[in-house]
Order: sequence, then C-alpha cells, then structure tokens
Amino acid sequence: MKLTLLELVELVGGELLQGQPDLELSGFESLKNARPCDVSFLDASNYAEALSTSKAGVAIISQKLMTSISAPETMALVVVENAARAFDKVVRKYGAPTIEFRAGIDPSAVIGEGAKINADKVEIGPNAVIGAGVVIGDGSSIGACATVGLQAVLGEDCKIAANVAIREGSQIGNRVIIHSSTVVGADGFGFEFNNGRHEKVEQLGIVRIEDDVEIGACTTIDRARFGETVIGAGTKIDNHVQIAHNVVIGKHCIIVSQTGIAGTCVIGDYVTMAAQVGIAPHVEIGSQAVLGGGAKVISDLEGGQTYFGYPAVPMKEELRSKMHLKRLAGLFKRVKKLEQGD
Amino acid sequence: MKLTLLELVELVGGELLQGQPDLELSGFESLKNARPCDVSFLDASNYAEALSTSKAGVAIISQKLMTSISAPETMALVVVENAARAFDKVVRKYGAPTIEFRAGIDPSAVIGEGAKINADKVEIGPNAVIGAGVVIGDGSSIGACATVGLQAVLGEDCKIAANVAIREGSQIGNRVIIHSSTVVGADGFGFEFNNGRHEKVEQLGIVRIEDDVEIGACTTIDRARFGETVIGAGTKIDNHVQIAHNVVIGKHCIIVSQTGIAGTCVIGDYVTMAAQVGIAPHVEIGSQAVLGGGAKVISDLEGGQTYFGYPAVPMKEELRSKMHLKRLAGLFKRVKKLEQGD
Amino acid sequence: MKLTLLELVELVGGELLQGQPDLELSGFESLKNARPCDVSFLDASNYAEALSTSKAGVAIISQKLMTSISAPETMALVVVENAARAFDKVVRKYGAPTIEFRAGIDPSAVIGEGAKINADKVEIGPNAVIGAGVVIGDGSSIGACATVGLQAVLGEDCKIAANVAIREGSQIGNRVIIHSSTVVGADGFGFEFNNGRHEKVEQLGIVRIEDDVEIGACTTIDRARFGETVIGAGTKIDNHVQIAHNVVIGKHCIIVSQTGIAGTCVIGDYVTMAAQVGIAPHVEIGSQAVLGGGAKVISDLEGGQTYFGYPAVPMKEELRSKMHLKRLAGLFKRVKKLEQGD
Repeated sequence: MKLTLLELVELVGGELLQGQPDLELSGFESLKNARPCDVSFLDASNYAEALSTSKAGVAIISQKLMTSISAPETMALVVVENAARAFDKVVRKYGAPTIEFRAGIDPSAVIGEGAKINADKVEIGPNAVIGAGVVIGDGSSIGACATVGLQAVLGEDCKIAANVAIREGSQIGNRVIIHSSTVVGADGFGFEFNNGRHEKVEQLGIVRIEDDVEIGACTTIDRARFGETVIGAGTKIDNHVQIAHNVVIGKHCIIVSQTGIAGTCVIGDYVTMAAQVGIAPHVEIGSQAVLGGGAKVISDLEGGQTYFGYPAVPMKEELRSKMHLKRLAGLFKRVKKLEQGD
Repeated sequence: MKLTLLELVELVGGELLQGQPDLELSGFESLKNARPCDVSFLDASNYAEALSTSKAGVAIISQKLMTSISAPETMALVVVENAARAFDKVVRKYGAPTIEFRAGIDPSAVIGEGAKINADKVEIGPNAVIGAGVVIGDGSSIGACATVGLQAVLGEDCKIAANVAIREGSQIGNRVIIHSSTVVGADGFGFEFNNGRHEKVEQLGIVRIEDDVEIGACTTIDRARFGETVIGAGTKIDNHVQIAHNVVIGKHCIIVSQTGIAGTCVIGDYVTMAAQVGIAPHVEIGSQAVLGGGAKVISDLEGGQTYFGYPAVPMKEELRSKMHLKRLAGLFKRVKKLEQGD
Repeated sequence: MKLTLLELVELVGGELLQGQPDLELSGFESLKNARPCDVSFLDASNYAEALSTSKAGVAIISQKLMTSISAPETMALVVVENAARAFDKVVRKYGAPTIEFRAGIDPSAVIGEGAKINADKVEIGPNAVIGAGVVIGDGSSIGACATVGLQAVLGEDCKIAANVAIREGSQIGNRVIIHSSTVVGADGFGFEFNNGRHEKVEQLGIVRIEDDVEIGACTTIDRARFGETVIGAGTKIDNHVQIAHNVVIGKHCIIVSQTGIAGTCVIGDYVTMAAQVGIAPHVEIGSQAVLGGGAKVISDLEGGQTYFGYPAVPMKEELRSKMHLKRLAGLFKRVKKLEQGD
C-alpha cells in the first residue's frame, strides 16, 4: 500500500481538515497500534482518548464526533460522514484480498476412489490430492497442494489451507480451520529398545478434531498409538505447536505458538497455554489452568490457577523465587558482614 | 468410533459377563492407558495386575484366564476364546486405515529426466514431483505432493509421506521413514557480515541419512556448507526438530520434539535428547549421554551421563541447585535471624 | 561421497606426497572443521596455522606454499599447482548438485487468471500453483508444489523453494529466498472471548517482505490483523521461527532457529537473536541489540547491548546471577557455620 494523503481523501470522499496533502501513507491500523505511516479511524466516542494519544499519520473521523474530540497537532485529519465505512474502503482496496469460496473440483486435483464429495458444494483447489474413501462435508474448501489421506472424514464449512497434510483416518468436525504446512495424523513417536536398536511401535490410532477448532501453520498433531488423539471443540492452536500421540485436549483451550505437549497428557477445558510451554508425558492439567510463557510442566496441575517456571509452580511461588534470586547478591553481602563480625 | 457394549459383543462374538449393554464406547487402548470410554483386552496372565487397576470401560478377556483374574467391579467384561484376536477386530474396524503399498507411478506425478525408478516396484503418489537424475530403490513409496530434488538418492523400502520436501543431492539409506512437511537438505544458515550487510555463504554440501532412520513431521535437517550433515543408522527424530548444517549425529539416537542442534555439533551413538533441548554450535556430546527436557548445552559433554539445566550439568548438580533454590526463602530468614543476634 | 586417496590424486591430477593410497575419504571440509575422513585444502599462507592443527585426512596444497608449511604427520598431502581449483573439482563432483535457473512454466503447474508472469524469464516448477492476479518478477523461480495465493506480488530474482506456501496478498521484494514448508501470510492468532467461546478476529492485513531477505524452512510469518507484518531489507531468518501478526522487524537482523516473536513487537535494525529466543507481545527492541540463546524478553530493551536469561537482562547481570547461583551451596554452609557460632 502506497498512497498520499490527497489520494486518501479522494478515495474516501471526505474533507481534509489538517495535514500535508503529499504525506505518504503505507498502512492502516487501529488508533492504538497505528504508526505515523498508517491510516486509522474514529467512529465512536469511547475511542476519543485513544485518538488523543495515537501515533497515526492520519485519522478518518465521523462528522458527528468533531465537536467532542481532541487530536494530536501533528496528526492529519479527514472528516467524513461515516468513518467506519470510509476506513472499510481503504481496507478493501489495500488489505489482503479475500479468498471467496467457489464450489468445484479443480481439474488438476486428484480424487481417490469412493470419495464422497459434492462437487457443487465443496471446493477442491489445484493439485490437491484427496485419498480413497475420504468424506468432505458441504461448504468445505481444500487448498492447493493440500493432501487428505485415505478415509479421512471432514465435516461442513472447514477451511483447509494450501499445503496442509491430513493423514489417513483423521476425523475432523465442522467449521475447522487448518493453516498451511500443518500435519494432522502423522505417526506418534513410539519405539521399543531391543537388542541395541529402537524398534518402531506401530501407531494404529487416529486424530479426532471436534467442531470449531482452528489450527495454525507448521503445527503437528500425531495420531494415537491406539484409540484417539483428541482436540476438543472450540480449542484454538497457534503455529509450531506439537501435540503428541494420545493427548486429549478439552474444549475452548488456547495453545500459543511453539508449545509442546508430550504423549498421553490430558488437558481440561478452557486451559490457556502461553508460548513455548512444555508438558511432560502423562501429565493431567485441570480446567481453566493458565500456563505462563515458557512454563515447563512435569507433574499434574490443578485447574483454575496460573503457573510459571520450570518446574511449573503457582505464580505466587514463582514470583517469590524470582524476588529471592534478585536479592541474592545482597544476601551474599549480608553473610559476609556477619562473618566479619560487624 | 462409536459403539455400544452390545454392538461390541456382536462384533467380537463373545459373551457379556458383566456391564450395561447400552454402555457407549469411543476408543480402544491398552489396559494401562484406557479410560472409561475405551475397550481394552487381556490375553496373557502377566497383565492380570494391569487389569485389576485399569480404568477401561470394558475388557475383552481370553476364556483360559477367567479363573485367575480379578477385574474392577465397574468394568464390563466380555469373554472370548482369543482376546488378542477379538481386540484386533476392533482395531481393524475402528483404527486408522492402513496405507498399503501399491507399486506404480500416479499419472499426475512429474518425473524428471534420467530418474531411475522401477515403476513395478516403487510407488509415486499423485502430484508428487521427482527431480532429474533421482534414484529411488525398490519398495519405496513417495507420498502425494512430496518433492524429491535433483539427483537425490533414496534406498529401498523408504516411506516418504505426503508433502515432504527432499532437496537436491540428498542421500537417503534403506527403510528410512520421513513424515509430512519435513524438509531435508535446505540451505544451512550461514552469512558473512560485510559492509553493513549479511552476505550469503553458499551451502554446497548435502544431507546423508543412514539406514533405518525415522524423522517426524515439520522437522528440518539442513545441508552442509561443505561435505555432509549426517544422521546415523537407526536414529529416531521426532517432530519440529532443527538439525543445522554440518551436524553429525551417531547411530541409534533418540531426539524428541522441538529440540534444536546448532551447526557442526558432533553427537555420539545412543544419545537421548528429551523435548525442547538446545545445543550451541560446535559442541561434542559423547555416546549414551542423556539430555533432560529443556536442557541447554553450551560446551562439550562426556557420554554415559544424564544432564539437565541451562547450562546443562550432570543431573546430581542440577538437583542440588534446584534443592538450594527451594530452600532459599528459608536462608533469607536464617540470615535475618543471625543479623538480629538471636 | 566415497573415494580412496589414490582416486582423489587421479581426480585432481596432483602428486601424492604422504599418505596411504587406500585411505577412504567421505567428505570435504575447511581445514578448521575437517575430520579424518575429509578432504581439505590450502591455497593461501594465512591458513598455514589452520593446517598445522587440522584433523583433515588429506590436504590438497598449492605447490608455491610447500616450502613454508608444516602439516601434521598423520595427514595425507597432495601437491598441485592450484589447490583451490583442485578442491573445486572435488566439490563439483561430490557436492550437492546445483539447481540451475531454467525459465519456463512447467505444464503441470496451474496458473490463475490474470497472473503477470513472463514465461521467458520466470521459472514455475512442476505442480506449483499460482493464484489469480499474482505478479512474479523476472528471474524468479517457484519450486515444485509451492503455492502462491491470490494477488500476491513477488519481485525479481526470488528463489521460492519446493512446498512453500505464500498466502494471498503477500508482498515480497527482490532477491528474497524462502525455503521449503515455510508459510508466509497465514492468519494471525487473534480471538475474542464471548459467551464461553473464542471468536475469531478476522485477520485482514498482509505480510510485506523487503529486498534481500532469506527465510529458512518450516518458518511462519503471520499476516497482520490490519496493515502489515514487515520483515526489513537484508534480514535473515532461520528454520522454525515464528513471527506473529503485526510484528515489524528492521533491516539486516539475524534471527536464529526456533525463536518466537509475539504479536505487534517492533524490532530495530541489526538486531541479533540466537536460537530459541522468545519475545512477549508488544515489546520494542532497539537496534543492534543481541539476544543470547534461549533469552525470554518480557519488556522493552534498549539497543546496542547483549541480553540473556528469563527475563532477559543485560549480560553482566545474568552472569552475576549465574555466579551467585553457583556459589549458593557454599552460602548455605557459611550460614550454617555462623549459626553454630564458629
């Protein structure tokens, strides 16, 4: 996006109240996050304070609010009748293009025998590969070069991005979103050590993903050894997350980037894990627990509390530990003083 | 998987000894890991104790063992002649479908000039791309949308999953398994800083993977700057692992998820790395060393020992450190008391 | 690579000065990094010391340097007129094959409507998928099974490896290199919690990558909620890195493997992040800051300094903390002694 303030005024059809017409703009943002190169907007009086401290290069403002606001002197101002609608014009013109659902199977896609797909209601992208016996519900789309293995079942209105790999037998609910390079249903990591070699333990289970789950990019969810690895309804998973075999995750959890959950863990509902958390095998975590960034969990944790550290302990304990560590240099001095008999 | 206890009895052809016929079952598991919704089984007397403490909703039990076992009162029991065979019926019906090897090159696959592939003994999946001069041994399969670069060589009986990227010149042994979205042979991360810019150092080496290696999903193994990055025979690597250029890993190692090994490290044989380990560049680790979860290694480590912490130290030292940290609050109190002259 | 010393001498046409002709060689390396199975070389006197301590199995040496060098007794030596040229013969024969740029659109690739690609000057690999309205500059190549989404724009001389996913609307400069399984422009991780459910916050922005950026394999750069996620010119990013929505990274930064940068962070120019760093949301880091391996940043950091630890603090502080921790066992003893009144 590259436009001048003058071009912006022409685009949204407003009046330039203050600002240099040749000011160059390169993005659009909320008032809070905007930088001097960004266009922002104000359409409701409860954001008036955000306006006064915003760094936006230009704010588009609804006429009705003009009497009650105070903007920084350096901010360009464009007045329009409806600022939300005007800002929307900018977003539509310069924002990411929206992929529209278009039913149909691209001729370059390969569809296996016995797959159940209603070509009038499902979108299969170019060079996608759908295995034999796969079932895909109406309203779902499969991106370019994505692969869906043998007999996998997907519900309705799913969005599977380009280059996703869904392995054989996976069971996926309705309205599930999966981003690129993510792998659902690869073998769990299981070996038995015999005669100096690690022998593969066959991974015969599947992954089951319930409704309304979203999974980021480059994330892996391994199939169970037996039975199922389960992601509960409404749970949202970020990029680069590892979920090992036989893990069972409850409903409406939030799992942030680069977190790893080892085999056979059981996670309750409404659990939040910040980034780079690690959980050892066979751990159970109660509902509504919150794990702080980088927490490493090595034993069961009760729900409803916030945990930090390695090993993860209730936040109060971790804060006390950190405080003691900060004061450690002082403690050495105090002991020295005592030793010197002062 | 969804069936009632009654349907299970019909499927395996046994006798319902105890339990409600309408009990709903949704998975199958070993006695140890089973939950109340799972089917499990007992076919050998040495698992009798596992039965007595199992949480399985139902156990299928071999007739011959009925006199010598004691199951929890709440567990449904189905008696059959051969419990292993009966359980197998459940796994086959409800477990992940098995991909069978089917020799042949899918018409949608693209095969480069001079590639050596016996179409009667190799399986190339839909929309896979095989580069010029590639050699693939008999019994190997390449998944859908997987790519194998120029002049790469794969041995016999390899299983390369869908969406894998094997870059040019890689050398892969026999019986190697590689899971989806994994990248073998991308450029190592090497730059020289000149005149305010990072200039690329060309990465001219390759990756060599020996026999019987398994590599998880979303893992990266970078090509050497010169020479080879090597993964020794029998080594097993989990998901999201990073192995940088010129690393040499010995035989029969276990490397768990989200571990990163920086450039030019040399790892011995039978080394175990738990999850989220990090190893700094140019480090050597002796054979049979064990690195605990999250250990960060910044200098050479002798083999045959277990290490934890950042920096990684022998486990005993780390345990002592952790114990001292736990007792730190008490130490502050003791020093205060001394200061007060008590 | 497998050849004997004798075969090496025949290949490079030199004279064998010392060493067993049947010595087996399996790689090539710089003098510093070479192992006993490697071929190395010496062509300039300023590496004479590296020769004397090298572990290379054989060194190829330029005739002119023979009077001024001293090599280990166990090292085989091959004398040639020009050692650099001779070594180059080895690299060309045994190194990774080089992919040569070949303009043209593979017939198996799928090109969307209105895409602007000069087929005489751009290379589109087999089974690649280019979306509608995409623009790709001359000299750029798109690898096999890579996907470029709707209306994305790529500059000149870019190298997009096999199996990369570039999502719709992404803006990519000139000479950008992106390795396999990397995802540019997936949705940021944004949800609002309403009535017990996490509702998706639409991600309407894009990713903008400036000139001369290189991005490793299995890395993710999420699109902005509004506006842009930006990677500044000349910045180099390793494998498995997570860059969240609305992050702005400056020019000529180095970001090593498995680092994660949370939403809306602003990173200056010439910032270096070692492996496994984590940065919390909304943090600003000044230019020329250096973050040590595994550092976890939870608040703004000034530029021009080196930071370590969790939370990341200036290196001096972290070193002092680590020293105190090492001496903690001794402190316990000293306090005990004081308590005993010695």
